[in-house]
Amino acid sequence: MTTPDLPAPRFDDVLAAAARIAPHAHATPVLHSRALDAEAGAALRFKAEHLQRIGAFKFRGACNAVFALADAQAARGVVTHSSGNHGAALALAAQLRGIPCHVVVPEGAVRAKLAAIEHYGAQLHHCAPTIRAREETCAQVQADTGGTVVHPYTDPRVIAGQGTAALELLTAQPDLDALVVPLGGGGLAAGTALAMRALAPGCDLFLAEPEGAADGARSFARGALDHDFVPDTVCDGLRGTLGAINFELLRAADARVLTVDDARIVAAMRLLWTRTKQLVEPSSAVALAAVLAQRERFAGRRVGIVLSGGNVDLDALPALLALAA
Amino acid sequence: MTTPDLPAPRFDDVLAAAARIAPHAHATPVLHSRALDAEAGAALRFKAEHLQRIGAFKFRGACNAVFALADAQAARGVVTHSSGNHGAALALAAQLRGIPCHVVVPEGAVRAKLAAIEHYGAQLHHCAPTIRAREETCAQVQADTGGTVVHPYTDPRVIAGQGTAALELLTAQPDLDALVVPLGGGGLAAGTALAMRALAPGCDLFLAEPEGAADGARSFARGALDHDFVPDTVCDGLRGTLGAINFELLRAADARVLTVDDARIVAAMRLLWTRTKQLVEPSSAVALAAVLAQRERFAGRRVGIVLSGGNVDLDALPALLALAA
Repeated sequence: MTTPDLPAPRFDDVLAAAARIAPHAHATPVLHSRALDAEAGAALRFKAEHLQRIGAFKFRGACNAVFALADAQAARGVVTHSSGNHGAALALAAQLRGIPCHVVVPEGAVRAKLAAIEHYGAQLHHCAPTIRAREETCAQVQADTGGTVVHPYTDPRVIAGQGTAALELLTAQPDLDALVVPLGGGGLAAGTALAMRALAPGCDLFLAEPEGAADGARSFARGALDHDFVPDTVCDGLRGTLGAINFELLRAADARVLTVDDARIVAAMRLLWTRTKQLVEPSSAVALAAVLAQRERFAGRRVGIVLSGGNVDLDALPALLALAA
Repeated sequence: MTTPDLPAPRFDDVLAAAARIAPHAHATPVLHSRALDAEAGAALRFKAEHLQRIGAFKFRGACNAVFALADAQAARGVVTHSSGNHGAALALAAQLRGIPCHVVVPEGAVRAKLAAIEHYGAQLHHCAPTIRAREETCAQVQADTGGTVVHPYTDPRVIAGQGTAALELLTAQPDLDALVVPLGGGGLAAGTALAMRALAPGCDLFLAEPEGAADGARSFARGALDHDFVPDTVCDGLRGTLGAINFELLRAADARVLTVDDARIVAAMRLLWTRTKQLVEPSSAVALAAVLAQRERFAGRRVGIVLSGGNVDLDALPALLALAA
């Protein structure tokens, strides 16, 4: 799945995205907790994207991509190959615009996630569970329909859309000293970088990454993308590889990567559940886990944290919680 | 533990409680969910008391009781024998007023709950796990300290305090057709009845009760208190017996009891978690479970639901979730 040849996104694109998605997306609240502030020794401000539509920030980018299309192009629909939150987000955005959505899904994908995608009216296209089969099926669907491919995190419209979460957070909390966001493919991270550089250039940007998918940390250390890894983490939203455009935007923002192991991530998730009563997924909790793991770095500072999503698989919970009992 | 000889609470007492606790308690938000509205075929408005301090509505009543005391009386402290949310609520309220709090707890009580009570500075008094031992220890502590006993749900100051949740809900949503609250000892229910009769006399009051602790339903059917039962339900907050003063206030409000089994309660809890990302406890989910079990009764109506608390024992989750897999 290749991204159309579009210019790299800028802060203006984030502002345009905010106006474009406003009729459809939630302006999510910023939460805080006395107990977690005490735990971190810092003033934590949580952007509650688990309360976004489809339960994750992904709706922002997908919605921006879908509503940015010209009418004639939009009528041919959109295509992607994510069976996770991006698939559901693109399906809902397409449904709201009244256009077709095609999602290529590998055999063996989680049934509940496919049901969510179908719930929003998207058409599923099954393929073998290999990257090559997915690419080929995606290309075939695109050729057959003339639809627009929307990549989950390298598409500039998606990146601009994801940046609206930080735009809202920094508008509500302009005095943050640091911002910590989860790092997977880098869509949320790169969008955050665009908003932060414009609105809070003195704020430090940290990218929280699971140790079991630390291609971001290795890429930053090398100064070049390093995709040579097999993901091994409970953070199912962060197993993707960092995108090239995302890496460039993040380097330009002087972002720093913090890695943290799964046990600390699940412990942070348990803390969030217990203290805030908010059901966030492990991929969200990685940011708080990174802050708690480096207490001295953040102590006494005002720290924004993006809670990226809340789509927890309840049937897999017992094994997950056991990682930090 | 007997309640001091105080007059039955009235709506004026709820208004006074609201003013008294305002500096300390959260005015919790009212939440709604497209998905749950579709599920119920009704417009559901959830009062989010799981976001109240100590994670449950109980803080309202305890705070009102503590701050209603005259200075000299307050200085001798407060006493109770709840190892659950009321114990933590009274401890926090006493800490905020700067007075001693004594909590009598039976041997074998859940360690995490005792830690929460101690965290707020209360002194624990251990006793054998019998009702008689608890009553005797409580009386002894009261005699030794001259402290004021604050019963978890029959104390009129507690009832008036709990009524402030419905006061806020009905102020934000004055057009509700029905209000559904969990029924345990009846503190929240009776307080709700006081607020509802004054602010929304045309609104129907429903009390949701687990089948495994249905003393409320039997008492209403008989027209007299019926405490002859051994509780058997996952709703640990609803195992107490309905209080006499609570029963009278609820009968005066023409309240009706709806019972629902544990499997439906856990299924409703899973729905709330999945759809709203709010971590509510089973004792909270009983109200939504009752609405979904009697869909035709509530269809097309505006229904207020009090989510009473969110103190879930994560270590007990696997067994709990398995009740409605």
